[in-house]
Amino acid sequence: MSGMQLKELRINAVRLQKNIEVLARFGLNEATGGLDRTTFTAAELAAREWLEDQLFRLQLEVRVDEAANIWGRRSGSEDALPVIAFGSHIDTVPNGGKYDGALGVLLALEVMQVLADHNAVTRHPLELVSFSAEEPNPFGLSTFGSRAVSGKLSRDDLTGVRNGQGQLLTEALRLAGGNPGRFERARRTPEELAAFLEVHIEQGKRLLSRGVPVGIVTAITGIYREEVTVSGEANHAGTTLMEDRKDALMGASEIMLAFEQLCREHPADDVVGTVGRISNEPNAANIIPGQTVFHLEVRAAQQEQKRWVMEAWAVQAASIAERRGLSLARRLILDQPSQPMAPQLIRLLAAQAGRLGIKTYPLGSMAGHDAAHMASLTSAGMLFVPSLGGKSHCPEEESRIEDIEQAGNVLLQSILALDVELSP
Amino acid sequence: MSGMQLKELRINAVRLQKNIEVLARFGLNEATGGLDRTTFTAAELAAREWLEDQLFRLQLEVRVDEAANIWGRRSGSEDALPVIAFGSHIDTVPNGGKYDGALGVLLALEVMQVLADHNAVTRHPLELVSFSAEEPNPFGLSTFGSRAVSGKLSRDDLTGVRNGQGQLLTEALRLAGGNPGRFERARRTPEELAAFLEVHIEQGKRLLSRGVPVGIVTAITGIYREEVTVSGEANHAGTTLMEDRKDALMGASEIMLAFEQLCREHPADDVVGTVGRISNEPNAANIIPGQTVFHLEVRAAQQEQKRWVMEAWAVQAASIAERRGLSLARRLILDQPSQPMAPQLIRLLAAQAGRLGIKTYPLGSMAGHDAAHMASLTSAGMLFVPSLGGKSHCPEEESRIEDIEQAGNVLLQSILALDVELSP
Repeated sequence: MSGMQLKELRINAVRLQKNIEVLARFGLNEATGGLDRTTFTAAELAAREWLEDQLFRLQLEVRVDEAANIWGRRSGSEDALPVIAFGSHIDTVPNGGKYDGALGVLLALEVMQVLADHNAVTRHPLELVSFSAEEPNPFGLSTFGSRAVSGKLSRDDLTGVRNGQGQLLTEALRLAGGNPGRFERARRTPEELAAFLEVHIEQGKRLLSRGVPVGIVTAITGIYREEVTVSGEANHAGTTLMEDRKDALMGASEIMLAFEQLCREHPADDVVGTVGRISNEPNAANIIPGQTVFHLEVRAAQQEQKRWVMEAWAVQAASIAERRGLSLARRLILDQPSQPMAPQLIRLLAAQAGRLGIKTYPLGSMAGHDAAHMASLTSAGMLFVPSLGGKSHCPEEESRIEDIEQAGNVLLQSILALDVELSP
Repeated sequence: MSGMQLKELRINAVRLQKNIEVLARFGLNEATGGLDRTTFTAAELAAREWLEDQLFRLQLEVRVDEAANIWGRRSGSEDALPVIAFGSHIDTVPNGGKYDGALGVLLALEVMQVLADHNAVTRHPLELVSFSAEEPNPFGLSTFGSRAVSGKLSRDDLTGVRNGQGQLLTEALRLAGGNPGRFERARRTPEELAAFLEVHIEQGKRLLSRGVPVGIVTAITGIYREEVTVSGEANHAGTTLMEDRKDALMGASEIMLAFEQLCREHPADDVVGTVGRISNEPNAANIIPGQTVFHLEVRAAQQEQKRWVMEAWAVQAASIAERRGLSLARRLILDQPSQPMAPQLIRLLAAQAGRLGIKTYPLGSMAGHDAAHMASLTSAGMLFVPSLGGKSHCPEEESRIEDIEQAGNVLLQSILALDVELSP
């Protein structure tokens, strides 16, 4: 095929739609309509088998690495060149949807299928990847596969880790085809990789509200988490006058609301803050709470934005605590800076979309993704598809096939353009 | 002894102090200095034995009833007259103090001792009572003994009840000398009883701040509890913009603070409100809370005061929920009206204190007590002793022996006065 002909290649939306439905049968919860395909469960292992089968049929070189990531390699005409990789994940949250993760893997599969249909030849080897355990899971390790590949996890991190049923992570990993004993071999080097591309659902409403079918991710949000402990005095709920109380829960409530208010006030709409988790002691109806602990999270595209929120909050929190006779203790849990996508990939994705006449919108990803870890290893780029109603991680999660098709074509043509543009 | 001589009788504070220290050895937690003498534990059973021993030595007629309440009867010269009963309880909360409950039983014992020392004869039979399981306990049934005596508990309420270790309440009750099979026989009739008196620590600061050694309880607080469920939408903590959130925990925080504010604003300082218990779903750091449930409690001397708080709160809560797109569900858990003490006993206690030159102060009890249940059966009266720092249910719980002595003398002289004044 000539370069001209390659530029005419398009994905097959009907075939893709069919694959979306087929993969959605694995882990289907008949009661809710959602998918229960958590990492390393029987349903997820069956989905893995199905995927490997598809890769074999396309005569890709299939490899399950030590972290149980599934790779499907298509040789290039200059096969020693570094790999152009693309993919996402097929595990879901409990009662999740059929697009989160799966879409990126199935689009990668469709790209491989289109190339095979037309016997297209690329200079670079291409690799589809389906990462293990991207979602939060019972083993407590999310983006497990991409962290392994980018060298952020080692054997020691796996030791003794169990899920709620007491199953060892190492044992579950082995069942999925991984090899905990040689775990570090899953790592790839910057030299082996030319680029990584991922398509994912947006999980928000920004694209939809702008009527744009494809988002180009500029950066993956930074995530900052603190555990805040508010300590007061547990006391008798009857005999302690209102003015004598040091009520930890009431203080925490005021402090949490101040945090929410600051996140609302921040002018950037991609600065968000959440208190998702709270515990209270002694937590009895007839005892004034003595200690309340909550987890506070800020997500922001820039560290500066996070700092603005946290500094303003700290002043207010301290003043609320002082007024109420409470003490505050703060413990840092996570300070993951935002991860910019590679500027040359952002430009290339936008250019290919432009050539195809597809409207795009640049936006930050407010969720973490495998691409954030791959970005520490190679140039990474990411496309978003609008989520209907902004919903994700639920049975109602949905994206329109028309939007998916556009994103798929941008992915396909960007891979082909990369193959040409990348030096040498 | 003549009536004149009886009026000169006083309790022996030194002997009483010694008994307080002796009883405090049962369940002593050496690490904290507190008492672990929860209902029906080994420590509590040992304390019961000690108490029974003291009653035997005073040649009282000792009876352990079907609810394992311990009674010690002293015959009257007109022994068919109804009983003047007095006492409290000897069980404690975990890591509790040595005064809550124990003081009332030891003062009753001291009264019996003084009468024995002087071979005093009363017309009415007198009964000391130590009620079972007054405190919240692992079987989930507080004021167990007095509820049994006043006919508010029956065999069915015991069936299948277990503590955290799986021990059946019926079995624990049997070990303490009770008889679950004939449980209703623990009930007493209004005809059998002439009056009930209880001395207890205040557990608050009102007496101390007024410099008064003895409080005369006018009523035992009403307790009203609701479970409030705030429902929003669990959603992704990253991809959901601040303005798109229906955050149940933030809504609950605002609603709880509105409740606190109303309780503070209420002019009566014996109207108090507490949110002691909260739970949150799904309670994960990276998910916006979808449902928050809390228990709200109001204590007030009058139903009218409780109604004022709850009605004002309901309006505010509904408006907060509406503004935030949340829904509210309320479930009544408890609506126990306040229990006035018998006016003639309030007058008699005040008159005896006045005769003894002891300052008293009338106040509502903000905690529940066995006397509240006995009041449904007979005339009940209650005396409070100041609590240092207002502390109770903790190792630091303390009352001054000077104050205790005054309360003891008011108790002793009130029993003797009742014996005279009560007709026939």
